[in-house]
Amino acid sequence: MNKLAIVGSLAFDAIETPSGKTDKIIGGASPYIALASSYFGVKPQIISVVGGDFPKAYFHLLDGKGIDTTGVEVKADGKTMFWAGVYNKDMNQRTTLVTELNVFADFTPSVPESYKNPDVLMLGNITPSIQQAVIREIGARPKLIVMDTMNYWMNTTPDDLDATIRMVDVLTINDEEARQLSGEYALVKAARKILAMGLQYLIIKKGDNGALLFGKDGQIFFAPALPLETVADPTGAGDSFAGGFCGYMAAKGSTDFETAKAAVVAGSVMGSFCCEKFGTENLQSLSEEAIAQRVKQFEQLSYFKY
Amino acid sequence: MNKLAIVGSLAFDAIETPSGKTDKIIGGASPYIALASSYFGVKPQIISVVGGDFPKAYFHLLDGKGIDTTGVEVKADGKTMFWAGVYNKDMNQRTTLVTELNVFADFTPSVPESYKNPDVLMLGNITPSIQQAVIREIGARPKLIVMDTMNYWMNTTPDDLDATIRMVDVLTINDEEARQLSGEYALVKAARKILAMGLQYLIIKKGDNGALLFGKDGQIFFAPALPLETVADPTGAGDSFAGGFCGYMAAKGSTDFETAKAAVVAGSVMGSFCCEKFGTENLQSLSEEAIAQRVKQFEQLSYFKY
Repeated sequence: MNKLAIVGSLAFDAIETPSGKTDKIIGGASPYIALASSYFGVKPQIISVVGGDFPKAYFHLLDGKGIDTTGVEVKADGKTMFWAGVYNKDMNQRTTLVTELNVFADFTPSVPESYKNPDVLMLGNITPSIQQAVIREIGARPKLIVMDTMNYWMNTTPDDLDATIRMVDVLTINDEEARQLSGEYALVKAARKILAMGLQYLIIKKGDNGALLFGKDGQIFFAPALPLETVADPTGAGDSFAGGFCGYMAAKGSTDFETAKAAVVAGSVMGSFCCEKFGTENLQSLSEEAIAQRVKQFEQLSYFKY
Repeated sequence: MNKLAIVGSLAFDAIETPSGKTDKIIGGASPYIALASSYFGVKPQIISVVGGDFPKAYFHLLDGKGIDTTGVEVKADGKTMFWAGVYNKDMNQRTTLVTELNVFADFTPSVPESYKNPDVLMLGNITPSIQQAVIREIGARPKLIVMDTMNYWMNTTPDDLDATIRMVDVLTINDEEARQLSGEYALVKAARKILAMGLQYLIIKKGDNGALLFGKDGQIFFAPALPLETVADPTGAGDSFAGGFCGYMAAKGSTDFETAKAAVVAGSVMGSFCCEKFGTENLQSLSEEAIAQRVKQFEQLSYFKY
């Protein structure tokens, strides 16, 4: 089974949206990425850190979906990272109420031997220097390294960020971040500049306006977001997208543009499932039929005969 | 040749964008709709009104593209409608500097005999009562009546607007307007409510985020906007979209969902051309090859093999 190594936060989230609110539930980037990827016949392996307060039930949940947590360090005397946030009425903006980094504040990733030489490496949105450390420790260079990041690192550690981007194959950011990183407003021009940093693909995420895939040879593909009846909670949709993308790519083993296009659809499929329930709930119990059915919906949404 | 009757403003526009600015040029909804539709092998026929100051050269321009202007009343002692606006840096917002309705203030549309019984009727965004008057005067009910409108009419003449929507087959509005009209945030729910007013199709325009087509039987199709190298001026993009849509529908003579999907792509194609130059300039001189090539770009942008 092809392997997908994932580095990213593992945390407690407390979320409030117009559809409801949760107590502390499993959150952070890595469970969304790992759960979403687990449906594509690959072995997700998480590198992260939690405190002694992290429930065994969450490890069992991940184990039960075939997700390897050997690389999750448990600091028995520390507390797990905690994030709390509230969404506005339209769920297109959120306010962070609490961010307690706790054990994540001095996270030094350690890659188990059993994780080495993965087919794909997914770098969740964390300090670029930590992303770099994982690339150095991962063994033989993976066929594909995918990196998520955000404007925060563009503002605080631009040099580290720049150097990290130059080490990876795929970057996923949103449209505003693409504009900030490139200094170009038109996304075609922004993409060309960012791809010139040595990327094979740039994915620009536009939330409920879909996602654009740009290839280094000028190719462009657009995957719409599925218009949903109900959005319960958009938390983790971007990470679920990344998980679907990486899971599909790791399973196929090819990195050509046709494969990347389908992987962006796989990502959009998982992002759409994520939003329908709170937290990772919907990602914990999807059926193959539900996924196949949703892929069909994306085909119907996109195909036309002129 | 199938006929497309169009009612809408015909005006002078003065436009400023980060890419440049124009003096008074031909503007208003109807020239964009008519020019865009003229590439689909149909006969566009404009119903509108101008003042004695409207240049003969503009009539020649429209005549030269096979557009019938018999139904454009010239009020020799009046002044043509004038609009001036300036766009922000990102061209996603604009400020109106001047709106002089002039002869358009008491526009009473009169439909020439040669316009009667068209295949498709396009009601540009004007007072709903005027749109209704045109429907009553147009002769035998067209196979398809398409209506554009905006939030202004939702706020000022909601009852007239409601009655007019119930007389047409296709409504084109943007996402915020769909939410306002329906009272629903999720576009799927908003669409269902609006379609229940008796529409066959609802088109929700999202500008550079594409367009959604909803059918009365629950069908959904999404056409992306083509990511452009350069946006010179977004003025008229929505009207160009409507023109491409109506032109394609009038040419095909069918109103089924597959045809409507392709027509939405035709609309997106014309909207993309419109934005690349100021005013109607790009729509005045497109080649069949350029249009066919751009349709191909939309196919490449949308198609995937999972």
